[in-house]
Amino acid sequence: MVRAGLIRQLGAGLWTYLPAGWRAHRKVEQIIREEMEGIGCQEMLMPVLQPAEIWETTGRYGIEEMFKLEDRKGSPLVLAMTHEECITHHIAREVRSYRDLPLMLFHIQTKERDEPRPRAGVLRTREFTMKDAYSFDRDEEGLRRSYELQTEAYARILDRCGLRWYRVESDVGMMGGSGAHEYMAPCAAGEDAVALAPGFAANVEVTELHDGDPGPSGGTVEVVPAIEVGNIFKLGTRYSEPLGATFLDEEGDERPIVMGSYGIGPARIVAAAIEQGADERGIVWPCAIAPWQVHLVSLAKAGEPEREAADRLYEELREKLGAEVLYDDRDAGAGEKLTDAELLGCPLRIVAGRRGLAKGVVEAGERATGAEHELPVEDAAERALGILQGLHG
Amino acid sequence: MVRAGLIRQLGAGLWTYLPAGWRAHRKVEQIIREEMEGIGCQEMLMPVLQPAEIWETTGRYGIEEMFKLEDRKGSPLVLAMTHEECITHHIAREVRSYRDLPLMLFHIQTKERDEPRPRAGVLRTREFTMKDAYSFDRDEEGLRRSYELQTEAYARILDRCGLRWYRVESDVGMMGGSGAHEYMAPCAAGEDAVALAPGFAANVEVTELHDGDPGPSGGTVEVVPAIEVGNIFKLGTRYSEPLGATFLDEEGDERPIVMGSYGIGPARIVAAAIEQGADERGIVWPCAIAPWQVHLVSLAKAGEPEREAADRLYEELREKLGAEVLYDDRDAGAGEKLTDAELLGCPLRIVAGRRGLAKGVVEAGERATGAEHELPVEDAAERALGILQGLHG
Repeated sequence: MVRAGLIRQLGAGLWTYLPAGWRAHRKVEQIIREEMEGIGCQEMLMPVLQPAEIWETTGRYGIEEMFKLEDRKGSPLVLAMTHEECITHHIAREVRSYRDLPLMLFHIQTKERDEPRPRAGVLRTREFTMKDAYSFDRDEEGLRRSYELQTEAYARILDRCGLRWYRVESDVGMMGGSGAHEYMAPCAAGEDAVALAPGFAANVEVTELHDGDPGPSGGTVEVVPAIEVGNIFKLGTRYSEPLGATFLDEEGDERPIVMGSYGIGPARIVAAAIEQGADERGIVWPCAIAPWQVHLVSLAKAGEPEREAADRLYEELREKLGAEVLYDDRDAGAGEKLTDAELLGCPLRIVAGRRGLAKGVVEAGERATGAEHELPVEDAAERALGILQGLHG
Repeated sequence: MVRAGLIRQLGAGLWTYLPAGWRAHRKVEQIIREEMEGIGCQEMLMPVLQPAEIWETTGRYGIEEMFKLEDRKGSPLVLAMTHEECITHHIAREVRSYRDLPLMLFHIQTKERDEPRPRAGVLRTREFTMKDAYSFDRDEEGLRRSYELQTEAYARILDRCGLRWYRVESDVGMMGGSGAHEYMAPCAAGEDAVALAPGFAANVEVTELHDGDPGPSGGTVEVVPAIEVGNIFKLGTRYSEPLGATFLDEEGDERPIVMGSYGIGPARIVAAAIEQGADERGIVWPCAIAPWQVHLVSLAKAGEPEREAADRLYEELREKLGAEVLYDDRDAGAGEKLTDAELLGCPLRIVAGRRGLAKGVVEAGERATGAEHELPVEDAAERALGILQGLHG
C-alpha cells in the first residue's frame, strides 16, 4: 500500500491516506452506508473525545488500550475506541416507550487505540476509521431480528467489496454480552487465524479443532491466517442497565433496552481486498472499490499530436461518460508508467502510444485477467466503458 | 438545534449529531468536496493523533488550546487542531521537483481543541469537523493563483449553502504567514463581529472604524455579530522551511515550497444557515442543505384508509422520484406533528389529512414563504417535486 502510493506513515501506528488510498477507503464507506440505510439503520455522528464518567459507569474506564487525557481544567477525558457508552447515554434520554423501538443507528468515525505493538501497515494502528452500528430492541427476540438484519447487510457489504470471507463464532471479549461473530478474510498477511473445513469455519480461539484434524462435516481442518474485518455482538442489557437506558412496555413496566453492536473496518476491508487479489506486479482491485476505474497512460510528451489524442480521450471518458479516470501525463519513461499502472492495479489500463495511434487505436488491458483489446480511437471511450461494465458483472 | 432534534450534548463542548443534524452536516461536506475537486484539490485523510515532534519543529507545541497526551510508553502525542505540520511533513518527502508543483490537497477531518470556555451549541466546541486544504507552489505568484482559486471555490460553497456572507481581511494569528481572510456570516448568535458599510466589510479586530462612523465609500459603518465560517491563510514558507519541504527549480536550485492553508467549518455553516433563516416557529432550511426536502405528515392512524394513501405517497416520492422524505407516521396529535414540522423546517411540508383526502387532495406548504398548495392525490408526488424544483431556483 505504501509502494502503490495509497498511504504514508506519520508515526508508530499513525497513517495518512493519500488520494488514491482515500478514494478506495471512501468507496468502502459508501457501500457500508448504503447497506446500513437499506436495513433502516440511520447515520449520525458521536464524538471521539468523551468525558471519562460514562466509562466509569460501565466499568470500562480501566481498559488499557484506551487513551486517557485531561483537559486544561484537569477533568478526565478519554479517546473512544468504541461507542457503546456514548450511544447508550443518549438513548437513555431519548427513548421512553416501546413505541420508540426497535431502533438502529450507526456512525462512521475515527477511533483511537493505544496499541501496545502497532505494526507496519493499516492492520494494527492506533487511529482508524470504523463503522459502528447499534440496535435497540424490546426483548431478545427483537435483538435476534436486528442481529439477523445486520448479518444480512454484512454479507452484502463484503460481497460487494469483492472479498472472500467467513463469518465465525467468536468470544465476546471486552464487549460483554451473550454472543458474537467475527468476519474473517483469509490472506497471508492476516494477524488472526481461522480454522476452515467443508461447511465449517471458526476462530481458532473458540474451536478445539486444529490444523489437520478431521472436519466436523468431513474433509480436513485447515488453519489459515485471516484479517478480521468486522465483528458483531449481542450485548443484551450489558450497557443499558448501568447507563439507565430503559423503556416502558405495553403494561407500563420499566424494562432495560436490549442492545446489539456491529463493527466493521473500512481500512481492513481495503487491506484484505488488496492482499487477496494482488499478484507479483501489484494490486488487482475489485472493481467496486478501485480508486479509479481507468488508468489512462499517455506515452507522448506535452505538445506532441499523440498527447492531444490522449487528452481528448481523457475528457471524453470523464466529462461525457462520467468515468473515474486517473490520467498519467507525466514526463516519464514508458516502462516506469506501465509498471506504475500495474502496481496501482486499476481494473482497466488504456495506453495511448505512438505505434497504436499511428494505426488509429489505443490499447486497453484488463488488470485482473491480462486480456488485451485494441480500441479504435474514435469510439475508444465507449468501448472502454463496455469492457468495464462486463468486469462489474 | 437541540429543540429541533439535530444535536445532543455529551459533555462540555462535546456534541453528538442526531440523524437529522448529521444529514444537513453531510450535505454541506458534499458541497465542499465538490467545489474542492472542481478546482483540482484532491481529497486525502490525515490523522488526528500525532507525534508531538513535528509540532516542536515548527514551534507550535506550546499552543495552549492543543490537547496533549502520552501513550502507554510515555511518548508525547497531540490531538491536531489543524494539519499544517502533518501535510508539510509528508510533502517534504513526496515533492522533489518544480514539475510536482502546483499541488492542492484537502481533507475533512475531526479536530480537537481544548477551549478554555466551551459554549452551548456547536459554535465553540472542543471537537468539530473541519475541511482544511493546503496549496503548494513554486513562488508567491503561484500562491496568489492558488489563493484565488480557493477564494472562488469558497464563494461557490457559501452561496450554494444559502448563506449571506462577507469575506474580510483578518489577522494571521497563530498560523503565521503574510495575509489572511475570514468568511463571516452575520447573525445575532455570532461570537465574532464584522464592520459593514456599502462596499466595505472588515473584521472589527483589524479595522479602526467603529459602529456609526462614516463608511470608506459612503454610508455608515454598522458593526454586527457574525459567525466565522471559514478562514484562509497565505502561509508562505512558515512551515516548509522548518519542516524541510523544498523543491528543485528549473536551475536545479533547492527552494522552499510556498504554501497556503484554507479552512472551513461545516457545523458553523449549518449553524449560520439556521440562525440566518429561522423564524419564530423554527428552522427554515436553505434547500441545498435541508436534512430532507419533504416532511410528509400523516394525520391518520395505522390501519385507517387515509394512512394507506399517505403510505403510498411516501413510497412514490421516495422510490419512484428519489425524493428525500421524512415521514411522520407517529401515533401523535395533529398539533404536535404540525408544530414539529415547522420546527424542523424542511422546505416542503405535505399533510395527508382526513378532510383533504375526502376531497382527493393533500396539502403542501412551503416552509420559507408559507405558500399553500392543494395537490390532487393521484399526481401529488410529481406536483410536489415540481414545487421543490421551483424552490431550488
